[in-house]
Amino acid sequence: MTSNSEDKRLPQPELPEPAHPDLDSMLSRKFGKEVANYFSGSPLNRVSFLRQDHPFLSHALTHHTTTFLIFNKLEPLVESPTKLHYATYADVKPIIGDDPYSKSEEDLVKEYNSTTYIPQMIFLGLHEDKDGVTTKKGYKGAPFFAVDVTPKHESIKEAAEALIKSFEDKGVHFSKGRLHMALPAEEGELRHFLFQYGNSDSSAAAIYAEARHLLDWNARNPFCGGCGQPTFSVNAGFKRTCPPTDFSQLLASGTQGAGVPEKPFDRPSCPTRGVISNLQFPRTDPTVIMACVSHDGQRILLGRQRRWPAHWYSTLAGFLEPAESVEEAVRREVWEESGIKLGRVVVHSTQPWPYPANLMIGAIGQATPDGEVVDLGNDPELEDAKWFSLDEVREALRVGTSGLGERPGPEWREGGLRLPPRTAIANQLLTSVVNGFVSAGVMKI
Amino acid sequence: MTSNSEDKRLPQPELPEPAHPDLDSMLSRKFGKEVANYFSGSPLNRVSFLRQDHPFLSHALTHHTTTFLIFNKLEPLVESPTKLHYATYADVKPIIGDDPYSKSEEDLVKEYNSTTYIPQMIFLGLHEDKDGVTTKKGYKGAPFFAVDVTPKHESIKEAAEALIKSFEDKGVHFSKGRLHMALPAEEGELRHFLFQYGNSDSSAAAIYAEARHLLDWNARNPFCGGCGQPTFSVNAGFKRTCPPTDFSQLLASGTQGAGVPEKPFDRPSCPTRGVISNLQFPRTDPTVIMACVSHDGQRILLGRQRRWPAHWYSTLAGFLEPAESVEEAVRREVWEESGIKLGRVVVHSTQPWPYPANLMIGAIGQATPDGEVVDLGNDPELEDAKWFSLDEVREALRVGTSGLGERPGPEWREGGLRLPPRTAIANQLLTSVVNGFVSAGVMKI
Repeated sequence: MTSNSEDKRLPQPELPEPAHPDLDSMLSRKFGKEVANYFSGSPLNRVSFLRQDHPFLSHALTHHTTTFLIFNKLEPLVESPTKLHYATYADVKPIIGDDPYSKSEEDLVKEYNSTTYIPQMIFLGLHEDKDGVTTKKGYKGAPFFAVDVTPKHESIKEAAEALIKSFEDKGVHFSKGRLHMALPAEEGELRHFLFQYGNSDSSAAAIYAEARHLLDWNARNPFCGGCGQPTFSVNAGFKRTCPPTDFSQLLASGTQGAGVPEKPFDRPSCPTRGVISNLQFPRTDPTVIMACVSHDGQRILLGRQRRWPAHWYSTLAGFLEPAESVEEAVRREVWEESGIKLGRVVVHSTQPWPYPANLMIGAIGQATPDGEVVDLGNDPELEDAKWFSLDEVREALRVGTSGLGERPGPEWREGGLRLPPRTAIANQLLTSVVNGFVSAGVMKI
Repeated sequence: MTSNSEDKRLPQPELPEPAHPDLDSMLSRKFGKEVANYFSGSPLNRVSFLRQDHPFLSHALTHHTTTFLIFNKLEPLVESPTKLHYATYADVKPIIGDDPYSKSEEDLVKEYNSTTYIPQMIFLGLHEDKDGVTTKKGYKGAPFFAVDVTPKHESIKEAAEALIKSFEDKGVHFSKGRLHMALPAEEGELRHFLFQYGNSDSSAAAIYAEARHLLDWNARNPFCGGCGQPTFSVNAGFKRTCPPTDFSQLLASGTQGAGVPEKPFDRPSCPTRGVISNLQFPRTDPTVIMACVSHDGQRILLGRQRRWPAHWYSTLAGFLEPAESVEEAVRREVWEESGIKLGRVVVHSTQPWPYPANLMIGAIGQATPDGEVVDLGNDPELEDAKWFSLDEVREALRVGTSGLGERPGPEWREGGLRLPPRTAIANQLLTSVVNGFVSAGVMKI
């Protein structure tokens, strides 16, 4: 949220030319630059209202422009740490079958059999900067899907293992850990339009984040929290429903092994049926993360966890609790972890964080005059929390940033402050503070 | 987030004097006023790190300063639409027993019996402006709990019905619907300190919201989404765990009716055991709600749902989807529902919304120059969406606001625009816009 020219002190990625340079410049002058954090800035139009439209999904699934992201145990298929591998319909057909969308959603629910394994698929959206399908209403773009090929069920084991081997033979592999933090993003770039600057190569992180969040949510919630019975994926991966009936032969006493019965069995009642319940929809956990400045705006509070490398600090963070505003959650977390009392709190920018399902809400807060004494004794989560001068933080942003498992740059000297990389919203918050978010009055809103 | 003096055009509630008027004035001059929306501004310190401390909870439960909010089927016990009824330990003792915290959490999990009904209790926090308990570390305040007395199980039915009758005899009752929107709040007031201005009478809405959100979450999630087995409430109502064993005699074949077995039965494995899983913790759904201005800042986009009264409009709103930033969710929702394309989006303020579990993230967005044409044909959720002048909205904020089931004020004339009341964040967003959030450059950050 800062357009301060001092931003240029930090290394900037080469950005593609905006599609409408005049408009870009005009909006920048008027409103400043929006900080688009890593994992945001998706080039896809999700066309969420088409997720129940199975004729559309069938058409999109088999189109020659369609791209498939492949996951095995939530690990994405990559060509390198900076490049996702996009598979084709021919690749996934042996796993998903000819067309999982050939019947309507209503019919599939009626035919529900809890013992049938269906590989999870997600319709991610249309990449409108790429040639692709065109709908009656005029939505255009190349369809993107995600498919879980984990060989976890007998019915797909052979096909999935063959597919995985064929990928390995091609030299592509499933990425362990969080290497995908290296995926290119449109870092720091304002996206004025929904899909104005779409560029698949520079937005891989956002597409990956959507796929990972949804595959994880589906895998984590095979049962209904309201009644305990197995649930069924609908709405192209964006909803799980608790069907009223089940063709599973396991439920029919005396018919085990006798194949699928002619009629489904009624399942016990469930409070999520016939109503709109949040249990049916993907979960996203709001998380607050905040740069705290001293009352005079000249120092920044940072904390560190015991497991981090020596000299590494970051902003404080924590989950928002039920019935808190963001501003209250920021004050509570900071007081619990550091004893610092905050007055004014301003939301700076936000970041999707698909590990597994977080929304990072970045804020900047100012300590009250008598609230600056550090006390780690409330909720002892941190090994240390202390105040740093703006100059110390500015220098560390210049020479001391890196991923957690990496070394800082060549100019960093042993003993100097280390900070998270630019892909972390913590870094963006600190950058805004040292560049004048508070002292130049940007915070006065 | 606006300190614009034009705020005074709207009726302002009488606010209590701030505890530190000099500081208040100083911070206001420097940072402006924070919009504290209805349901926020809790006077309670949640002391979240004490939720597993059963000796503390036992002490708090039976203290003479302790207050209990009573709910029946999620309806709160009230004396009037503007006053919660606070019950005592003596009232709830027949339902909850002498001390549900007499054993450690670890022991209670070991003794778990899925057929035992335990009325849901929530420890809400300490009201630090009121005399109460004092902990070793020095936390002070009057404890607040919520208790669900719904007579839904044989084991408490008689006691619960007797308690409900005793309340009715006293003239207090369980509030239907959302009458509690009439509860007093510290509307529009900045809370500089965690608990600086605590005032139980003016913060009832925030205390109620915390209780309702947590009771609802517990009631809605009796089963584990990971394995389908019943779960058990721990952490004073803020966590549900999936115990590894169960003393339920229902699980022992041949022992039905034989009472509780000597040893518990092992339950099937569950992916949430031995790890930290979000399934164990309360869910809060991030929701975006936004005032959209035209590119020149002179008009405001409002929409209406079919079921609303004639002439009633509001800001657009919708759920944030997985792996979206708030800014992206705002642009997507506005485009889906109205066809309008937004450029710059700024977060304004946030509001807890306990129906059942929402966090309303209020934003202000600006249309792009060629993105101002309304199109209701993407996701046809709205009956209408159209542009209004700032003057129309300003006048409606003055004369046309009310709750959905109420009539607007005496100055409203038939056919005039109607808008939500000040307790709705929609109203606060519109108020900020007509008071210069965009045109006076407040948005330029």
